[in-house]
This record gives sequence, structure tokens and C-alpha cells, in this order.
Amino acid sequence: MALRHYTLDFSLSTAVDSASTVPGLLSIFHEQEMTETVHDTDGHGYLATFVGKNGRFAVLRVHSHELVTIDLQCYEEDNIAQLDNLLNALEKKLKVLLNGNITRIKRLPALIRGAKVDRYWPTADGRLMEYDIDRVVYEEDSAYQNIKILHSKQFGNILVLNGDVNLAESDSPYTQAIIGSGKENYAGKEVLILGGGDGGILAEVVKQKPKMITMLEVIDGCRAHMRLTCGSILDSLEGDCYQILVEDCVPVLKKYVQEGRTFDYVINDLTAVPISTEPEEDSTWEFLRLILDLSIKVLHPSGKYFTQGNSVNLKEALSLYEEQLGKLSCPVGFSKEVVCVPSYLELWVFYTVWKK
Amino acid sequence: MALRHYTLDFSLSTAVDSASTVPGLLSIFHEQEMTETVHDTDGHGYLATFVGKNGRFAVLRVHSHELVTIDLQCYEEDNIAQLDNLLNALEKKLKVLLNGNITRIKRLPALIRGAKVDRYWPTADGRLMEYDIDRVVYEEDSAYQNIKILHSKQFGNILVLNGDVNLAESDSPYTQAIIGSGKENYAGKEVLILGGGDGGILAEVVKQKPKMITMLEVIDGCRAHMRLTCGSILDSLEGDCYQILVEDCVPVLKKYVQEGRTFDYVINDLTAVPISTEPEEDSTWEFLRLILDLSIKVLHPSGKYFTQGNSVNLKEALSLYEEQLGKLSCPVGFSKEVVCVPSYLELWVFYTVWKK
Repeated sequence: MALRHYTLDFSLSTAVDSASTVPGLLSIFHEQEMTETVHDTDGHGYLATFVGKNGRFAVLRVHSHELVTIDLQCYEEDNIAQLDNLLNALEKKLKVLLNGNITRIKRLPALIRGAKVDRYWPTADGRLMEYDIDRVVYEEDSAYQNIKILHSKQFGNILVLNGDVNLAESDSPYTQAIIGSGKENYAGKEVLILGGGDGGILAEVVKQKPKMITMLEVIDGCRAHMRLTCGSILDSLEGDCYQILVEDCVPVLKKYVQEGRTFDYVINDLTAVPISTEPEEDSTWEFLRLILDLSIKVLHPSGKYFTQGNSVNLKEALSLYEEQLGKLSCPVGFSKEVVCVPSYLELWVFYTVWKK
Repeated sequence: MALRHYTLDFSLSTAVDSASTVPGLLSIFHEQEMTETVHDTDGHGYLATFVGKNGRFAVLRVHSHELVTIDLQCYEEDNIAQLDNLLNALEKKLKVLLNGNITRIKRLPALIRGAKVDRYWPTADGRLMEYDIDRVVYEEDSAYQNIKILHSKQFGNILVLNGDVNLAESDSPYTQAIIGSGKENYAGKEVLILGGGDGGILAEVVKQKPKMITMLEVIDGCRAHMRLTCGSILDSLEGDCYQILVEDCVPVLKKYVQEGRTFDYVINDLTAVPISTEPEEDSTWEFLRLILDLSIKVLHPSGKYFTQGNSVNLKEALSLYEEQLGKLSCPVGFSKEVVCVPSYLELWVFYTVWKK
């Protein structure tokens, strides 16, 4: 049983004291049979909490600066219309009490806490986003990551890896961007896909009749639940011009380097650019550098390497990535493109890298 | 001074009693010099509130079903690292105490309440969205609406009308969709734009050398602050092949009907489809029907009428709109398209309507 958490905030042009606002509000709480406790805040404004029936709980704060905040929590199966009325009554009363002093009234959509299906998936740059997710389609812990496929009413099924939105069935702009935004001709070419376990890249590139696509990795669950993305391409691990190796990519890449094998295109769909250089991300950066260097080594001198970067807002992470590009075993050039991927709810940077 | 509101929620596979969890957490609050009050919830689990220094306030609930929730409020200029540590300590301790019983740990980005610049603009279908807005560029109350232009780090300036995100400088997909997604040829045509006060539609259509574009409305502020959208087109109210009439569109449309004047294209960018048929929206529906009927009356028999609809998730509102299309003074056909408008953070429906 989930908790609904409502907030109602009044921003003011000048501070008010509780004596002029609180008494008028108390009667509204009392009508709902809520019992208050007034707390000592040691000079930080008025603070009262209210406990009501059915587990209802409210907080009223008249802050010592220009702000009045109200929190109201109730259980999901509570009488929501009654709670709406309570909030309406509080809002209406505060409008009268604070008349002429209000710069903003903000009543956000209720936060749903502890729901069976979680709808909150923050952006890469750390902003709160509520998705229209109505059910969990698939969930599995693989050796490498937690894999979820969630159904969004507008985006279709969404692949979520370790809590990050990875790709939705609506996200053909992602696939188009990471295969070169329609400016490449894959016919007769040798292509290596690292990751891309949802099958979207493979399904698109195969249409152009390349000589051979080698893909490392496949994510269980996508074959069945991301059909709008992968079509039937994951139904078989090999076809006329592709093979999928369900193997760890590092040893395979090392083998290709030893054999002197090269590719016209290397498409790295493994992981986003780490956000920081904090210790907990050290191993991600190390992995990224290793893959990047091996990828450039197996790239044909006139070949192209495509990869996703991160949120356009994470300028520092993107700069760090671009620094890495200057430290590879052979010199490279790069360009970038900003793309709107529907389910990401933030603009995303994609890179093209080539040997100089 | 804004309030930061943190939430930390543990979903469980079986309910726990407070005796096994609360004592282990209390010491963590006490270390931060927070004083607790335990409340009587009349059988709805354990509920304690904690007041600390600097206006800090916390709520701990061990619900009688499978959920433990923590709220933590502090002021923006508080020692955020210290608060992070407190949340980390609570999370770590709860992981130990609830070991084996946890189905989900959810710690959302802090909700910022009462900030000078408001970052929360819900979607049309009522979901909570946090934008990367860092400043208010322009704000004005016109006779018809509240006009805001807000700066987003990724989307550029965003026009917000009466609290609804209307158009950002990143949103050329909106403009492209409402002029027919590149499938129309405006050369030599008579075009009527209703609304479109940001200048985006005018700036695009004028490139195709139509015979004449008549636009009704302009929104002050856009000329100066939505330059990536309107370019220099709003600098003058008339040009070689366009005129802007800063007039109420209903009397102008009625005059055109009387004169028997027709247009090859009517582009209605005035307002989204109302969400409901509640009394408070009656006048919006009435206005929509009036404009729609007048627009179809001035449409050339082979002409096209373009308009935006609403969020793809608001199926009922869209159905109601389509019902209206069946009730006009002359029979019409229609098609629709779903488009990803970057700053909307939800997919949007656009309509094409023609005379049968």
C-alpha cells in the first residue's frame, strides 16, 4: 500500500508571523479530526504536526522567512476526494490570510511513495522525473547488472539497467544517432557492435546489407519484450550478415587486436560516460578507457567509431571523456551531436571518433 | 531561502515492527542533536518527528504494512554534506536492520520548495517534472494570460503560458509538426496563423515564399527572448509576404467569413485541447469550438487546417476533441500524428483537418 505525499507551498513577498496565519488553519485540520503537536524550533518559525485517522499525517510550517509549507501524507486507498478538499480548504484560507503578500502558490502532483510499480527515474543530471509507467514487464539480475523492462503508456516498453533508463521502444532517434544519423552507408562493410543488447542497432544496420556485423552481448528479456526495437533479429544468434557472440567483449577485442582484424565501423553501446571521477566510478572510467583504446585499435584507418556520451548538461563528465580521447595509443579526432531521445527526458550527446 | 526536502523509502517483502528498527535509528538522529516526538497513530504504525538545529526537521514512519519512510527537511544554505551523511547513515543502518526483507530502496533527488526560481512544471497529464531552469528571463501578466520566459540549460528559453510549457527554443519539432511535417508546399499560398505568438511558425513558413501570411496575435517578450525560435521576423509587424494583426481573432475571423475570404492553410496555435468537460473548462471548450468552426468556414475547399491537440496520454480529451470535429457546420476529415517535442517531456498529438 503506497503513501501519497502532497505538498502545498506559499512563497511570500514578506515574512509573516504564525499568530496571523495559524489559528485560521487549525480549525480546518480539526474539522478533519486531526490532532496537532506544536514543536519548539529554536527560533526557526512555527512548526506543527497533525495526526489524523487512517494514518493521515500533516506538517504545517510558517517559516521565519518568506515561506509557508504544508505536507500531507495519506495512504493510497484513503478517500482522495476528501484529501483534495482538505488541501483546497487550506489553499483557499491561506489565500485570504496572506492576501497581497503571495508571490507563488505551488501545489505539486502528489509524490507516490512505496508503490508496487516505481514511476520515478531521475535524469542523468539528477533531476526528479515521474514516468507514466503502469507495470513491470520483466526483471532479472544478470551477472553484470539489474535488468528491468517497464511499460510506459507513451514510450512503450523501457529497458532500465541498474536504475538508468537505457532505451524505450519509442527511441529510434537513439538508434539513428548511434549509427551516424543517416549519413553512413553500411553496405558491404565490416561492423562491430559492443553492447547493444536490446537489438535496436543490429536491426537497423542489417537492413543496409553490410558484409558482416559482429555483435558482442545480448540482454535476456529484450528479445521478447522490446519487439518494436529489435523486431525478430534477436530470435537467432546468426543470420546472413550478422553474428551475435554472447561473450565478454574485452577478451574478444584483445583477440581481434592480436589477429590484426579491423572493422569499418565500431559502435559502442555499452555504457554512458561516467558522471564523475569519484573513487566509486574509477572502475567505470578504467573500463571505458580500455574499451575505447581496444576499439580504436581494431578500427580501420578510414573507419568510424560511434558512441553515446551522456546528458548535455553534464559538461564536466563530457570534458573528461574528451580528455581521454586525447590519451589513446593513436591520435583521434571527434565530433559530437546533441539528440532528443524521447524517453530520456533530457538531451543526450553522441560522439563520432576517427583515426587521424 | 528555499527548503530542501529529502525522502528515503524502503519497500519490504514483509511488515516489520518498530521495536526491531527504531532503536537502531534513534541514535543516528540523536548524534545530529535532533529531538524526537513519538505520535499516537491509532494503530497505523510507528510515527516519530525530529526537530534539529538550523530548522532541520525529519519524519520517521514504520508503516504497519511493508514500508518504512523517512522525510528530511533543511534550508538550502544548511550544510548539505552533513545532511547527505545523515541520510547515508540512516540508509546504511536500515540496510542492516532490514537485511533480506528489502524489495526496493528509493532515495529521490531532493524536492526544492519555495525557491526563487521554480523548476517544477508538471506535464499536461499531471506528472511531476523537474526542469533544469536556472533563471526567469521575463514575466508579465497580459490581458489574457500570465506570460513567463524561463531559461533552461538544455532547451534554451522556454515560453510558459499560465503555468503550461508552451514552446522552447529547442522545439523546432513542434513548429515542423504544426506546419505539416515537411509535406506541404506553401509557395504562393494564402496562410492564416491563429496565435503562434512566439513567431516560430511565421519564421518557418515565410521561408517558403507564400503569397501572404496573416497572423493574429503576438506575445510581448518573445521578440526579444525567443530569438532562436522567431529570428528577426517579429521585429516588424509586416513584410513582403506577411502581416501580423495584434487583434482578437474571433471578430477578425467573423469578418473574413462575411467577406467570403478563404485561406489555403489555417494554422491554429492558440491553445491546447482542454483536458476535461468540467464546468471550469466549459468556456475553453466553447472558445475551441467557435474558433474551429470559423476556421473551417474560411478554409478553401482544398485547404488544410493544422493544430496541436494535447498529451498522447490524455485519450479522453483527444476523443472529446475528435467528437467536436464531427459537429461542425460542414463535414471534415482528420488525421493525427504523435510528435516528440523536446521541452514537453511527454509525447504530443497534432491534428490535420480538411473539408470533405
